[in-house]
This record gives sequence, structure tokens and C-alpha cells, in this order.
Amino acid sequence: MKQIALLGSTGSVGTSTLDVVEQHPGEFSVVAMAAGTNVDLLARQVKKFQPELVSVAHAEAAAALAERLGGSAMPEIVYGVEGLEQVARHESANFVMTAVVGSVGVSPTLAAIEAGKTIGLANKETLVSAGPVVMKAAKEKGVTIIPVDSEHSAVFQCLQGERREDVSRIILTASGGSFRHVSRQELENVTVAEALAHPNWSMGAKITIDSATMMNKGFEVIEAHWLFDLPYEQIDTILHYESIIHSMVEYKDRAVMAQLGTPDMRVPIQYALSYPERMNLDSEPLDLVKLGTLHFAAMDFERYPLLQLAYDCGKAGGTHPAVLNAANEVAVDLFLKGAIRFLEIETIVRKTCEAHQGVNHPTLEEIFAADRWARSFASDLYTVGL
Amino acid sequence: MKQIALLGSTGSVGTSTLDVVEQHPGEFSVVAMAAGTNVDLLARQVKKFQPELVSVAHAEAAAALAERLGGSAMPEIVYGVEGLEQVARHESANFVMTAVVGSVGVSPTLAAIEAGKTIGLANKETLVSAGPVVMKAAKEKGVTIIPVDSEHSAVFQCLQGERREDVSRIILTASGGSFRHVSRQELENVTVAEALAHPNWSMGAKITIDSATMMNKGFEVIEAHWLFDLPYEQIDTILHYESIIHSMVEYKDRAVMAQLGTPDMRVPIQYALSYPERMNLDSEPLDLVKLGTLHFAAMDFERYPLLQLAYDCGKAGGTHPAVLNAANEVAVDLFLKGAIRFLEIETIVRKTCEAHQGVNHPTLEEIFAADRWARSFASDLYTVGL
Repeated sequence: MKQIALLGSTGSVGTSTLDVVEQHPGEFSVVAMAAGTNVDLLARQVKKFQPELVSVAHAEAAAALAERLGGSAMPEIVYGVEGLEQVARHESANFVMTAVVGSVGVSPTLAAIEAGKTIGLANKETLVSAGPVVMKAAKEKGVTIIPVDSEHSAVFQCLQGERREDVSRIILTASGGSFRHVSRQELENVTVAEALAHPNWSMGAKITIDSATMMNKGFEVIEAHWLFDLPYEQIDTILHYESIIHSMVEYKDRAVMAQLGTPDMRVPIQYALSYPERMNLDSEPLDLVKLGTLHFAAMDFERYPLLQLAYDCGKAGGTHPAVLNAANEVAVDLFLKGAIRFLEIETIVRKTCEAHQGVNHPTLEEIFAADRWARSFASDLYTVGL
Repeated sequence: MKQIALLGSTGSVGTSTLDVVEQHPGEFSVVAMAAGTNVDLLARQVKKFQPELVSVAHAEAAAALAERLGGSAMPEIVYGVEGLEQVARHESANFVMTAVVGSVGVSPTLAAIEAGKTIGLANKETLVSAGPVVMKAAKEKGVTIIPVDSEHSAVFQCLQGERREDVSRIILTASGGSFRHVSRQELENVTVAEALAHPNWSMGAKITIDSATMMNKGFEVIEAHWLFDLPYEQIDTILHYESIIHSMVEYKDRAVMAQLGTPDMRVPIQYALSYPERMNLDSEPLDLVKLGTLHFAAMDFERYPLLQLAYDCGKAGGTHPAVLNAANEVAVDLFLKGAIRFLEIETIVRKTCEAHQGVNHPTLEEIFAADRWARSFASDLYTVGL
């Protein structure tokens, strides 16, 4: 029985994780869960899955949750970053799914590693911000980190039964996001609603915007660097509009292994939970006949400058990726609030990265400091005007 | 050091095997080789690779080879089916590549299995004709059979690190062969030269014709049944014009693993030799950007009735697949000689299969008897007129 602590239960990956858990009641149970402020949904989840421990964003949300749960069997309710970490460390959990959004995922992931839990990593900002610290801790604790992002799960699956030294390169596929058929000039005036309409994947708002700017692919490149211990020269990206090939690994004999499927996050989520085995899933089977054609095109680094910036920050290393991520979180938040225009996301992120004085081989505290500095700098950029 | 006995050294797979061997002189050597009557090429190969034992089709070819080799260090020269078996059993070989064409591959493959050699199986007729006998022998001897056909190698690679019970189905891709854009009416009058022009793969004459009739895919379905121990209901085919995805495995969670690459037989050949590791190969890397699109279409069993017949013979089991194969060998030979028209290949094969009284759970001798009967019946069909 896999006993799961689920961080981010009300988000897109969180709800899909619970869907997978429901399909295999004898195999999986949820013993702890954490969410932010969506107390209505969380209360329904708690009633259904009956975890022992639940964490929310703050004391008010905790009180609201307790009231919603009323007479039913009450779990222990905690809150804040400390609450998140408690869920990640929860004694009866042997698997921690980290599906929170943003660099807030770093400390609970580290807490789970310290506690020796197997990690299903759906929070890519954790490795983007704190890759060296997290991977070092995982190695020291002998903890397995199983990627949940569809691209990294694909690569992980393509690496099964193979030797790492036989890998020539990995190729991450990118749909191109909401604006893949829109020129840069036309991007000047796109709306939030347009940006949120991803062609292939139904995901949370943050990652959908990150897909449109290709920042998401940039994060994936950095995440892949850490997950698979590969230099950036061995990590390529390709445009693949249909999101059917989720990613590929080219080996030194030029054989390419790929993982394909109908876009459905439950597949990589369940794979992380069932690894190294597979289990049935009521997902839509891939129908290549119906699709008829798969398209590919070269990645366009001028069209998507944030991807180039991600490679640059990744290669620079140290605190640079953390700053890239933090500035992007601020910028996307401003865009979603309607405070800045779409292309100004790039401006804020670029200017923040340019202004950063990086620290090599940073400690976790130095990473957090860089993160705070970047948030402050990016916010100021907006306040004083771009 | 892998010491190879190569059966069929002058054919397409044979010469590619030698190309691979040449690229890795410290890893591979050829200790024995067998060919048919192409003594000129064989003599050059013997001088270069210096095997200890060489077999040819008959005594005259053996004498011609000895003359060609003249003063150089002379290997032992043998001939006939007995010679083929001697090469397959050769003491200093630990790997036998069976790359002869047709059901003549059965007895040397069995000889190699009896001698406990690891098998690289490029002769699909071996499993089509004698699947139950060959697989039983391999199991008893604990011998590994590594497929060399690009499709089966792809499936084999997609199964690495996975559990067989997690497989939902395998999907063999088919280019459609030389006449994929030609209607059945137009097939009436196609020429041998047209049939030999395969769009993607450079292969021997027999297999190129088998690709055009889709008989080749039918044989692959039967071969896959034996290699991967799967019922025919779990073996699908799909038209994929570019031959880039070499085949796929769908798992029960709906994840699909695929192996891709530029069509180059040296990749599966080297994989069989280097398995479970991979080695460098100077093959053309896959360039999906340059390709731009991959196309897929449903298999058309009315357009390609021999594929349906292969499924039927495979499910019928016993001696039926051996008869299918033998009748096809006769018919393709007649077509290549200009004696019959293209669509008459189908007629001969179909009529022979219809006339066959099958034997269940056949012995090897019963399989050979059915093979001989089918050759005789198919030849008679031609003689008396279709």
C-alpha cells in the first residue's frame, strides 16, 4: 500500500492525483494533504479521502476548514510553510507528491527527503530554484525522485533498462503553448483569457502562462539537468504541436526512445505512484490513425527569448536559476492580475536576471535570499515603471 | 569480445553486420561465416575478417571460394545445410547472427540454440515456420533470442525495464512498401523493377517484395507472437509512411513507448550485438525538424489480403504459418523471375493455404514436411496455370 502525502491537493495535479488514487483503492491511500485557500474543495477532499493530517495556507483557512468539516471525523489541521513541511514529513506517509506551484515547494520537498520519503515531483520550481541542494540531499538520503511533469516522466520512462552513459541527448517536446501561431508583434496586445487557453493540456494558470512564454520549457530544461544529471549541451527542445510525443531520449547508437500518449496528466502521475510497475488507467488510448499526422519544427529562440535565458541561467548556475524563477513568478502574477502586458513578463524577468549578482555553490539560505531579492527587484521594476 | 558466427554474410543484413563489426574491432570479431553462391564478395569478406570456418551453398561454390582465396590463410571450407549448421555450432562463436533468407534458416538456428549460442535473429521465416519448436528449444536451453528486424528490435527495446504483464498491445509500423500509393487495380501490371524500389529501406529482393504485398508485415506479426509471447489480439499494425517510428508498445496505463530513428539496419544489428548496452554508431541522427511531419493511417486489410491471411494462419497455428511462408517463397521467386504477375503472388499463397490440411502441435519433421508440400503445391499451381 502506497501511503501518500499530497502537497497541493486542490490544484490541477493534486485533483488528478486524487482521481488516480480513487481508481486503485487497494493500492493507494492519502494519509496527509496540503492546500492553499480553496477550503471548499479541500473540505470535500478531506471527507472523501480521510487523511490524518491537513495543512492550509494560514490560520483563517484552518479555521474555515474546521468549520466546514464540522461533525465529521476531524483530521489534525495545521497551516503555513511549517504545516506544509509537517505534511511532507508525516510519519505514516511513504510517498510524497509535491504538486504545489512555485518555489514554495522547495522546503517541503527537502523536508520529505530528510524524512526518507519517495518523492513524486510535480513542482518544477523546486529543482529550478534549489537543484544542487535538493539533489545533494536526495543522494545523501538515498531517496528516489520520480518526475511527474509529462516531459520528464517521458524521459524517465525512456531511460528504464538503459545505461545513463549510453545517452547521447534528451529531447524535450514543446507544444508552443497558447500563442504558437501568433507573431511577436501580435503578442503585444494578447489578453489573459487568450493566454490561458492552452491547445493541448488542461493545467493551472501559472504553468499555462509559462507555456505561452516558453518559460515552462526553460524550467524543464533546468529541471532535466538536475534530474538526469546531464549537461545543458545534451538537453534539446523541439516544437511538436500535438503534444503526443511527450519527450525522447537519443542514445549513442542513434536509436531514439520516445514516450507517447493522449495528453493526460494522470498517466505520469500514476506512473510515479506505481513505478517501477504499471497499473490500469481509464485514460483515452492513443489513436495515431485518428490523429493522422504529427508535426515537428525547430525551436525558435528569438520567438521565445525566455527559453534562451533559461539555458543561460542554467549554465551560469548558482543562484541564477532561482532568480529566473522568482522574477517569473512575480511577472506572471502581475500579468494574471492584469497589471502588465504579456510581453512585459519577459522584460521583468530579463531585467531582473541581468541585475543579479550570482552566488556560486549557494547554500539553501543563499538561494532563498536570491529568491527574495528577485521578487523585490521584479516588483520594484513594475512599481517604478518598465 | 563477442565472437560472431554470421549466417548470410553476403546479404543485406550480413554486409551491414560486417560494417558494424568493422566499427568496433576491439569488441566484435567474426569467427565463422556462411553465404550462398556470391563467392566473389565472400572471398573479399573472408580476406578481411579472417574467419576460421566458412560455408557456401554447394561443393562447386566451395571449390570456387578456395580458388579465389588462393595463397592467403585458408579457413576451413564446408557447404550445404550441414555446412550452415556447422557454422551455427562453431565452437569459438558465442553469438550467432542468422541473416539467411527463407525457411532454410530454421535448422541452423536450431543448431545454434542446441549449442547454447546467443542468437541475433534476422531471419523471420525461422519463427514463422517453426516458432513453437524454436521457442521451446530456446527456453529449454536458456538461450536469448534478440530480434534484428527493425520492428521487433524496436519492440524489444520498448520492453526493456518493463514487465511483460503490463503490456496492453504492441503496434508494428508498416511503410506500405513500394506500392503504397497504388490502387489494387493498378497493381495488375506492375513490374519487378517497380516492386523492388522500396521507399525507405534498402533491403534484399525477397523482403522488398514481401513489403509490397504486406506479407512481410504478416510474417512480423507471427514472429512477434513467438518472440514476445503475445496472443494475436495484442498485436496490431499501423501504416506509417516514413518508417521513422520503428514500432511501439502500449502499456496498460495507456503510455506508449516507441523506438525511432533514421532507417538504418545497422542500428538494430548493432543493438543485438551490444545488448544490453549500446555503442557508438556512425548512423545518421534522427532529424524530426527536417522531416517536419510523421504520417499514420489505418492498416487496410482489403488492400493487403496477405496480412489478413497471416493473422488467420497465425491463429490457426500448427503447420499453417510454415505453409504460408513456403508458398510465399515459391510465389515471390516466380515473380522475381518474371514468371507470374504481382497479384498472382497472392493467388498462389492463398490457394496453397486453403488447400493445406494442418497439423496441430507439429514436430520439426512435420513442419518441414508441410513446407515441402506447400512448395510442391505452389509450384504445381503455377505449372498447371492459375
